[in-house]
This record gives sequence, C-alpha cells and structure tokens, in this order.
Amino acid sequence: MTGGVPDGDADSASFRDELFEHGLLIPSGVPGLYGCGTVFEEIRVSFELLVARVASDDAPETMRFPPLLPRAQLESSGYLASFPHLAGSVFAFEGSEDDAVKLDERASRHADWSEFQRMSEVAMTPAACYPVYPAVAARGALAPGGIVVDAGGAWVFRHEPSEDPTRLQMFHQRELVRIGAPDEVLAWRDRWRDRGLALLHSLGLAAEPDRAADAFFGRGGRMLAANQRSEALKYELLVQIAGTKRTAVASFNYHRDHFAAAHGLVLADGSTAHTACLGFGEERIVLALLRTHGLDPGRWPDAVRAELWSA
Amino acid sequence: MTGGVPDGDADSASFRDELFEHGLLIPSGVPGLYGCGTVFEEIRVSFELLVARVASDDAPETMRFPPLLPRAQLESSGYLASFPHLAGSVFAFEGSEDDAVKLDERASRHADWSEFQRMSEVAMTPAACYPVYPAVAARGALAPGGIVVDAGGAWVFRHEPSEDPTRLQMFHQRELVRIGAPDEVLAWRDRWRDRGLALLHSLGLAAEPDRAADAFFGRGGRMLAANQRSEALKYELLVQIAGTKRTAVASFNYHRDHFAAAHGLVLADGSTAHTACLGFGEERIVLALLRTHGLDPGRWPDAVRAELWSA
Repeated sequence: MTGGVPDGDADSASFRDELFEHGLLIPSGVPGLYGCGTVFEEIRVSFELLVARVASDDAPETMRFPPLLPRAQLESSGYLASFPHLAGSVFAFEGSEDDAVKLDERASRHADWSEFQRMSEVAMTPAACYPVYPAVAARGALAPGGIVVDAGGAWVFRHEPSEDPTRLQMFHQRELVRIGAPDEVLAWRDRWRDRGLALLHSLGLAAEPDRAADAFFGRGGRMLAANQRSEALKYELLVQIAGTKRTAVASFNYHRDHFAAAHGLVLADGSTAHTACLGFGEERIVLALLRTHGLDPGRWPDAVRAELWSA
Repeated sequence: MTGGVPDGDADSASFRDELFEHGLLIPSGVPGLYGCGTVFEEIRVSFELLVARVASDDAPETMRFPPLLPRAQLESSGYLASFPHLAGSVFAFEGSEDDAVKLDERASRHADWSEFQRMSEVAMTPAACYPVYPAVAARGALAPGGIVVDAGGAWVFRHEPSEDPTRLQMFHQRELVRIGAPDEVLAWRDRWRDRGLALLHSLGLAAEPDRAADAFFGRGGRMLAANQRSEALKYELLVQIAGTKRTAVASFNYHRDHFAAAHGLVLADGSTAHTACLGFGEERIVLALLRTHGLDPGRWPDAVRAELWSA
C-alpha cells in the first residue's frame, strides 16, 4: 500500500504519468480520454498493418464504419440488456432560439444544460463488429464458404471512466469478423486465438490465453458470465501491463447465432449463419509494448522492430 | 423538377444510390451515417498521406485525438453559443438494476428510453482542432516561431441528418493547426489556402476559393456570418460534386485570439498567441474525385493516380 492507494493502482497511475511526461499520451482532463503523440500513433498504426499482413491469407473484405451507429441497431442488438452501464447515446439540440440562449448561458458556467438535449438517432459504437452484421445481411444470403470482414482499427466507446491508462472510454479495436457455417466459424475463431497468441509472442509480449467472460451488468450478469466461460464462447489474451492484474489485449468471440438471428444472416441453403469476431485492443497493445520494451521504440529488441516495421 | 423533388436533390440522391450500388458507401439506415468499402477507404487514406507529404516542410508535430472531447472544454469553447444545433453530447446510464431492466424493455421495442440516460463528462468532437489548443497550452509559453500541429484525419460530428452524401453526421477532417504570432499565423493561413488550391488542382478537381462563413445558429448568426466574411476570417475551396450548389471541401480559418484567449496560449514574450487551422473534408474530397473522374480509380487520369499513389 502507498498512502492508502493499493499498490496496483499506484503502479497504474505512475505508468500513466510517465506516458504523459514523454508525450506518448496527452491528458484531456477526463479519465480514460487521451490524445497521443507521434511515437504512440506510429506504433499503433504499425500494429494495424501487421494484423492486415497476418490476415491476408483470409482474403478479408475491407469495411470501415464510423464511431457511431444507428440507435435502432443498438436497441435491437441485445447490448443494452447485457451492458447498459457501458453504452453511450448521442443527444442533440432541437429547440428554439430562446432555448439556445438558455443552453449556452448554463453551459458557459458549467451548469446543467441536459434539459436542452434530446436523444438523437445515433449512439456510440460499442464494438467494432456491430455495424458489420447488418451491412453483410443487406446483401442477401451468403455465398458458400461465408465471408471474413476486416473492419480495421475502429473507434469504440465504453462508459467506464478510470485512472488506469489501460481502461479507456474511447479506443481502437482491430477487428476481424467471420460469418459462415457453424463449424467453419468456430474453427476460424480457434485458429485465430492461436495465431493471435503467436503474433503477440513475436512482438516479445508474454501473452497467455484464457477463457473469459464479458462484463455483464448486475446480479443476472454473473450467470451469463459463468455460462459464457463454461461454454468457451470467449477467449482472451492476457498481458501484465500495469497494476497487479493481467490485462486482456485481445478477445476471440464465438456468438453462435446471436447476431445472425438478430440481423437475418443466412447461408446459401437458407439456414441461419453463425458468427465470430476477434478484436485486438490497439491502445492496450501499444501500452504492453511500451511497458515490456521501454518507452523508446528505437531501443526495442531488433526482432520486435523487424516484426512491426518490416512492411 | 423531378416528381416534386428539386433537380439538385434528385441528383444528390441518385449519386448516393450509385455509391451504395458500387459498395463505395454502405448505408446504415440513418441519413448522413455511412460505412465505406475498400476503394473509398483507399482513396481517403491516400489523400491523408498526400497532405502529410505536402505539409512536411512545415515540420508539424503529430497529435491525434479521439472523436470525443471533455464536455467542459466544449462548454468553454464558445461552440455552443454559435452552433448549438450541430453539437452532440454523450449520455450514459447511471441507474439501478431495476432501471436497467426498464431501459432495456423500452429500448428493445424502440420506445423512448432517454429518461434512463444522464449527461456524461464527454461530448462529440465538433472540429478536429479543438483538442489541440489545450494540449499545447498545457506545455506553457510557445517557443519563438510558434508551432504547427498535424492533427491527422480525425472524426468529427455534426448533427445535421441529410440525404445528401456530401453532408455527413460523422466525417474525417484532415487538420493542421498553426499557433504563433499574429502575422506568422495569418501568413500561414493564406499560404495554405493557395497550397490547398494547388493540391486540389493537381488531383484534377475544378476547385475555386471563396470567402465563407460558418453556419451560425439563429437570427444573430447572420450578423456573425457577415462579419466573418467581411473580415476574411474564413476561406473555403469549393467543388461541384452533386446537386446544383458547389460544396466546400476545405476551409482555412483565422481565429485571431479566440482559442488562444480561451485556453491561455501565450507567446514567449507573454502576449496572447493567435491561431489558425485548415481542414480538408476527406469524405467530400473522395466524393469529388469519384464524381469528377468516375467510380473506378483504376481508370482515373494517370496524373491524378500518380499524385495520390506516388508515395
């Protein structure tokens, strides 16, 4: 314990301050919301490209989506039942000129102006795979063999303000999505769990796989999490970054027919498809690299540098 | 007129449908919110890199920021006085388990669940330069000569749902920011207006510069706009894309001491800095290229292809 703060928290806070001092992260004043400088961004982008190189033998189709999705889609997805505490909705102004004057008067003295905001048709994207399912479903039945989609490094939102630099409100998920027959989807998920592990090892990260569960909300959530774990629907790759616990830097998720049923994704024979996705947490991977190899990438091991900057 | 729809609107809508059909844009169901496919994304990223090459003799410092900024910063910026109708604030859930059940029950039948959302500490980034000013101010007085910041191609939000594909709710601004002494900042803005025009001409776009004004809200906004235009604070580069009016694809803005005073940006001698910024609307530039040269970049003029893909 350090001044009443658990050791793990003190370690996270001191790592974060070190990142600020070196211009790797830029504080915004809000916990979990940061800018970044040249070095951090170069590592992040290099990692994005590295995943693209590894994924190229999947011949994925590129799709890119904004950090917002239609609110109606979030409502239909089941996300709000499981993770109401993590979701973000976008509100906007629909009032009169008089209302606008009142809004600004309150806002400029940092008083409550929420009554002048109405829920809009858009919400924060909670996971990079969400917009992919309706986009693929809109094309009709899948071709034999299904599809792999490369959804890039997409911004996603989690409402969980924290002083821990590995827990961000807005971060990039490096996402691939597989849609097809149940056996081919599950095999893809398992193969990528192993490939992901090898990829992180090639970057000198002491990553370890584990069965995992999502952070479901409330008392009922504990049972959902136990089921998810016992049925091996979610694997994570864990790395020691800061604090006392290991941090998940990637996840490999088998959804069975959850998203396919919600969006009407069907195979060529008319049966419901299955889906899986994988996501690397780009900022967490950059942080793991900085913590493992030091804050100056110029002094990282040659093998790591070659892997990241060999394109 | 075509079936009661103005010709310009019909042209915009048919261009948008053509973009959907070719997989260049991906509809989401919400006007002004689209995904994109491989070809669109490759052009956009190539344009980002082209601007980086042109900007390299400014020796800019790289900073990257998320699509959200602290709500307190939006409140202090003056944006809500001028553009309350365009701003977006992020709301989230803070309730009990019972509240969560009610939220999901309403949301899953697309009924109003806004009462279960509270204004959070974050808001949508309205322009890519906003997070740059406090980040630079936090370092203390500027060095002689000031600074140029490359803020990348950053996602920004505008609450203006529209069927016109050139009017997006979420889009990328390719942003550079200049902070320094008044004369050097104004000279930089004017030089970049000319460089930006040359850059667009090199891509075969029939761009033209014009004095412009922001879309200030309400009756009072008309006077603000007239002032902005008469004092030449804002220039835009306009291209005919779809519809009957030309579309602004870039803007070059001199803020005098507006942002510097709000954030305490000072020169080495202690006097208040001035600021300017420029932003290319990346999606609009891609649309202008597709409209001008056709939907298949493989068949674009060699000079344009060389300019974009010469890196």
